[in-house]
Amino acid sequence: MVALKCAVLLFTILGVCNSASISIDSAKLECNLPQTVIDEIAGYANVTNTILDYFIRGPFKGETWKRISDFVDKFGSRISGSQNLEDSIDYVIAKAIEEELENIHTHNVEVPYWQRGDESVTLLEPRIKAMPMLGLGGSIGTKPEGITAQAVVVESFDELKSLSIDEISGKIVVYNQPFNSYGESSQYRLTGAIEAAKLGAVGSLISSVTNFSIATPHTGIVFYEDDIPKIPAAAITPEDADLLWRLNKRGQNIQINIKMDATSEQKISRNIIADLKGTDLRDSLVVVSGHIDSWDVGDGSMDDAGGSFISLLAPIVLKKLDLRPRRTIRTILFTGEEQGMIGAEAYELDNREENKNLSFVMESDFGTFAPLGLNYEGSSIGKCMLAEILKLFSSINSTEFGTGDAGPDISVWTSLGIPGAGLYNANGKYFWFHHTEGDTLNVLEPDVLDAAGGFWTAVAYIVANMENDIPRE
Amino acid sequence: MVALKCAVLLFTILGVCNSASISIDSAKLECNLPQTVIDEIAGYANVTNTILDYFIRGPFKGETWKRISDFVDKFGSRISGSQNLEDSIDYVIAKAIEEELENIHTHNVEVPYWQRGDESVTLLEPRIKAMPMLGLGGSIGTKPEGITAQAVVVESFDELKSLSIDEISGKIVVYNQPFNSYGESSQYRLTGAIEAAKLGAVGSLISSVTNFSIATPHTGIVFYEDDIPKIPAAAITPEDADLLWRLNKRGQNIQINIKMDATSEQKISRNIIADLKGTDLRDSLVVVSGHIDSWDVGDGSMDDAGGSFISLLAPIVLKKLDLRPRRTIRTILFTGEEQGMIGAEAYELDNREENKNLSFVMESDFGTFAPLGLNYEGSSIGKCMLAEILKLFSSINSTEFGTGDAGPDISVWTSLGIPGAGLYNANGKYFWFHHTEGDTLNVLEPDVLDAAGGFWTAVAYIVANMENDIPRE
Repeated sequence: MVALKCAVLLFTILGVCNSASISIDSAKLECNLPQTVIDEIAGYANVTNTILDYFIRGPFKGETWKRISDFVDKFGSRISGSQNLEDSIDYVIAKAIEEELENIHTHNVEVPYWQRGDESVTLLEPRIKAMPMLGLGGSIGTKPEGITAQAVVVESFDELKSLSIDEISGKIVVYNQPFNSYGESSQYRLTGAIEAAKLGAVGSLISSVTNFSIATPHTGIVFYEDDIPKIPAAAITPEDADLLWRLNKRGQNIQINIKMDATSEQKISRNIIADLKGTDLRDSLVVVSGHIDSWDVGDGSMDDAGGSFISLLAPIVLKKLDLRPRRTIRTILFTGEEQGMIGAEAYELDNREENKNLSFVMESDFGTFAPLGLNYEGSSIGKCMLAEILKLFSSINSTEFGTGDAGPDISVWTSLGIPGAGLYNANGKYFWFHHTEGDTLNVLEPDVLDAAGGFWTAVAYIVANMENDIPRE
Repeated sequence: MVALKCAVLLFTILGVCNSASISIDSAKLECNLPQTVIDEIAGYANVTNTILDYFIRGPFKGETWKRISDFVDKFGSRISGSQNLEDSIDYVIAKAIEEELENIHTHNVEVPYWQRGDESVTLLEPRIKAMPMLGLGGSIGTKPEGITAQAVVVESFDELKSLSIDEISGKIVVYNQPFNSYGESSQYRLTGAIEAAKLGAVGSLISSVTNFSIATPHTGIVFYEDDIPKIPAAAITPEDADLLWRLNKRGQNIQINIKMDATSEQKISRNIIADLKGTDLRDSLVVVSGHIDSWDVGDGSMDDAGGSFISLLAPIVLKKLDLRPRRTIRTILFTGEEQGMIGAEAYELDNREENKNLSFVMESDFGTFAPLGLNYEGSSIGKCMLAEILKLFSSINSTEFGTGDAGPDISVWTSLGIPGAGLYNANGKYFWFHHTEGDTLNVLEPDVLDAAGGFWTAVAYIVANMENDIPRE
């Protein structure tokens, strides 16, 4: 996930990106639901257990992992605009057809196709050291011999701004920002090049956005602004950023060369849509979603093949179990998420008349580790209803509300007051792997995926089959 | 550390490398020490606390980390044979002189100088993927265009040997061995190329020897045998080894290109020796040691700048505290450890007459994480004496015997029955960083180093000052 929502918010309420946007605290949740609603939801206990059993002990045990492994082993990484992503989209479409989902189609979206070429960051002074790095997605390249300049190391935007233009101009700015939260630290990836260029810097390096590293560089999108010079931007490892910070602190002359052979063009990609049509309320939609694109490193198993597959498999398993809900369950696998939720924004724009039919929107893009419950955004009454639903998942310890956003792609709807939820899961190591070569199938575990898939499918079914919609704000 | 002891043992008692070589189990330790010895050791409580306080709360607080950071930031990695290692040795000698240690000198040792050049492993079929890798130390290079061949993936030597020569000949063997223990898994690094070449393989790839990875390749020494063809050998990530294993399992044709531009020559390096001369028993020696060389990735903070510095600082701090023991404390920082304990073996050979004077040998080469006690090799009576000494360290929870070897370098002496001990420490993540770009200063923590250094210094002091030697076997 790209957490672009944070980026959008940045310019108005810098720093609060990582806080929850839930309007009520679950500890303080005061509910006054009609007993009929409570009883109705409690009545889903048997079907919930049927779905969980099917994933965890039944015919689908291990199947989620297996299908993801077939997919990621075949395609590897799937960056927006690449032919490989389009081939992987065709593969998913073929699987949806094979499973006899309905209304299977794609939705064209123009996306950037950023290609990483040969790239390097080399410390030249005070000693020579090749620094493991990844260019940031969307960065401009350098001339073939690269950029060589003195480096200035700062720990924050405030520290940068405390320096004079003379101290920054013509230099490479190295951000050795701390990782207090993803929302805070990722701002340096998103806007570090802009802020450095405003002061005349010729390159921008960030400490990779993570809370743990084994010399691991992390990529991710970088922003430019039209009236600010574009400068090359890359991530180095937290270890090397700390080294440069210590050298800088000692007053040593730091010389760095940045070489990046990067190109960018516009391409057409596709969102994937597939339905399990509802019965009597079929115009009403419950969306389950993830994003099919990834970064160009690792194989994107975590971000977001895991989320995509549990959302793809929800209607497939319900069909196998002959559990067709009253509302339509729509799987959407968005493209271009990593480039800034481009697929989701285009979908919402091109299908705006559908918004009135959206009953509930779900997205899994924060990992598919052990499920713990839901990250919910929406009305208080809706949260009370979901609290009743979560009681059905005590057998897998997935009964809690997290404090995170529901999800970056579905924020195109939750920002309009349409209720939505993300998979709240035990993702404490998420940022260890996020946007790295280490985002591979090894991050995923078959048993854990079974639980996550069962949870996701059962929640979608209940919400799509209930008498009442989750009310909007 | 290179764990060459295991390699040497391999050919006689394969598989037992990781088991302890301690002859008695601490749980069963039955001691019958004279009360005078027990009382004498208990009498070291005050001096122990003085030393610990000096490191942990006193003037030396944070100083161990600071000195290591000055060292590793200045030199970075220090592979055997490199000018950089020799410069770092000169730096340590200058520090020892500055601190007025005694008998400061070096001991010349011929070591290999293996140099990594451009290198890559690329999956060509069934899809193209650049695989993060590190050539194994000592590996031959390839021709400029590299070696391209079909790959066969096995999980063990047994599985390899179950295949026919036709199935291996002309191919690249990929070992996707599990990590049950370092001793077991590292055999594939040490002898994988030999076993593959015996069956006509043209290249050998191993899954990196580790129990956790973020797409992290690990280097380390590879062995060749004179009458077996030498083939290029490299480590890929556990994630990619798993991927290749799955592709192989599905019967897919796997084509790989290995390119390595590696060279090797012989050079002179130096062991570093510095003493704190004893008083009345000055001919008797207590050795505290580590190794000054590292691999050519990361900066070798963990393996083994941490161990080297706590051993270098032991006599320095004792001198500052005016605690000159009866026996001489000798710091030895060995060279060429990573190439197979070359410095230690040469030292023992060239100073064999000194063996009779060795009272106790200590080495820290398994990390300087939170100290827990000692890994001891030697007589039962000696273990009883050390058990009394460890009782003095309850304030820092360093009172236990571990089950590991005392240390690879000092095995040149412990194998002769000379008692020795290594730093038993909370090194559960040691192999996450071992021989990788991630072996950097970030692995070390100032407070933890203070405790480790204080423990190490106090143990050395007590052993060097006691009425009795730790008895030999």
